[in-house]
Amino acid sequence: MKLIRYGNPGQERPGVIINDKMFDVSAWVNDYDEAFFGGDGLAGLRHTIGTEQLSEIPAGTRLGAPLARPSKIICVGLNYKDHAAETNAPIPAEPILFFKSTTAIAGPNDDLVIPRNSQKTDWEVELALVIGKKASYVTEADALKHVAGYTLHNDYSEREFQLERNGQWVKGKSCDTFAPIGPFIATPDELQDVHNLRLWLTVNGKMLQDGSTANLIFNIPYLVSYISQFMTLLPGDVITTGTPAGVGLGQKPEPWYLKPGDVVELGIDGLGSSRQVARAYES
Amino acid sequence: MKLIRYGNPGQERPGVIINDKMFDVSAWVNDYDEAFFGGDGLAGLRHTIGTEQLSEIPAGTRLGAPLARPSKIICVGLNYKDHAAETNAPIPAEPILFFKSTTAIAGPNDDLVIPRNSQKTDWEVELALVIGKKASYVTEADALKHVAGYTLHNDYSEREFQLERNGQWVKGKSCDTFAPIGPFIATPDELQDVHNLRLWLTVNGKMLQDGSTANLIFNIPYLVSYISQFMTLLPGDVITTGTPAGVGLGQKPEPWYLKPGDVVELGIDGLGSSRQVARAYES
Repeated sequence: MKLIRYGNPGQERPGVIINDKMFDVSAWVNDYDEAFFGGDGLAGLRHTIGTEQLSEIPAGTRLGAPLARPSKIICVGLNYKDHAAETNAPIPAEPILFFKSTTAIAGPNDDLVIPRNSQKTDWEVELALVIGKKASYVTEADALKHVAGYTLHNDYSEREFQLERNGQWVKGKSCDTFAPIGPFIATPDELQDVHNLRLWLTVNGKMLQDGSTANLIFNIPYLVSYISQFMTLLPGDVITTGTPAGVGLGQKPEPWYLKPGDVVELGIDGLGSSRQVARAYES
Repeated sequence: MKLIRYGNPGQERPGVIINDKMFDVSAWVNDYDEAFFGGDGLAGLRHTIGTEQLSEIPAGTRLGAPLARPSKIICVGLNYKDHAAETNAPIPAEPILFFKSTTAIAGPNDDLVIPRNSQKTDWEVELALVIGKKASYVTEADALKHVAGYTLHNDYSEREFQLERNGQWVKGKSCDTFAPIGPFIATPDELQDVHNLRLWLTVNGKMLQDGSTANLIFNIPYLVSYISQFMTLLPGDVITTGTPAGVGLGQKPEPWYLKPGDVVELGIDGLGSSRQVARAYES
């Protein structure tokens, strides 16, 4: 299944994509939230799709992030060798973890707002996963039972805030609109091999990131198990798994960053694509 | 006003403390959550207390954290000079920020669970504040208008997870029960001067931390304004302002940490006290 949320910001309703068309399911699903993922929401939704007559959502309707505000967004840092190299960082011996404020969440095609006083707003295409079942001290062998699905995420990062403002990274990861998620959450059965997906990102049409989840240093079962040793993961929580090479900070001969009007497009095989237009902050 | 939540874990109801007695207000207040703090919840509660007959809650009833799960807990690191010195860290030039998972929240007198594989579970008495009004790019002059109240917090920290596991600090701050909050939230009118409060902590009756919020490096208006430059603060969000000297990591001649059976007590002038008994994790 492919889960979407659509409508105006803050008023999104749940829907699904079937054969490239969008359908409303709000008569059967309250929202894609902790109760949905932690209960039998996905099984119920599958039944709904199989038995009910669904109303189509007009093409062009705004999409929100495909899940309600989670309890947390956990980010994995430097999880591709080529990205660690381009930022002159060592290959991590174990996963680097940091959080992103959930107030950063935006729809997949909403504008990116460059924060006030920002000179270094950067992009990061990432594969994100959504927790389906509470996870505390889970093993690698059991980890995938705790995953509800996968989605596309652009982990926007203000490099001065992140790296030059005395720490920690969360400071450069949490501005409003810095977490466009979606277009949809795909349940695991939609993907042949989550560890062999191409992921890419362009700015103004120029290909800058072009990697594969085959190159993740720490794979998904490892990450879920590892993180669950340090904190409890709740249904609906998002883990975003790191970005491959090609971010602004890694550009040669000089790093460069986003300016108003720039168009960022990104995608992952089987998880669709998203598009953000950068604009300046206006109070 | 002094706000409490009482009852079994996950089923807490809102109440208030008046003249050292606890009263239920669940007929008028749904919960102390984003909607309560962000709406006219405090004004309505003041009216309720002034006009309604409230039922007393039996003494000895368990207290939960005095607010529902917030969107985030933002922690300020090394915000007392003596604590920076004891951990051999420089005085920060600007606030260090990190998050704590909201799944760490516990009642003020709940057991502390020492995580599996932990050797270095440490204590940190802290003054925390609760956001009352959405804050984005607020000035220092306006910052206190965005504060709903203050509370006591023990920012439990696993030092190996925090400092020796490849980053970032969130890894050592987020275990279940690592954020006992309360006993109550005091509205600002309850405190004469929030920047002149004694805060203290004992382990097994021995005084280990004994400081004053007069020694905060970055004060509360500065912190609220500063953090709001990097992320949007929502009503109900918690900012915890750092700990004074005397943590386990700073003990001489050798650091030492909590073991099962240890009793941790802490308090802040005007914000009451809390008590946690340490116990081992049991699956």
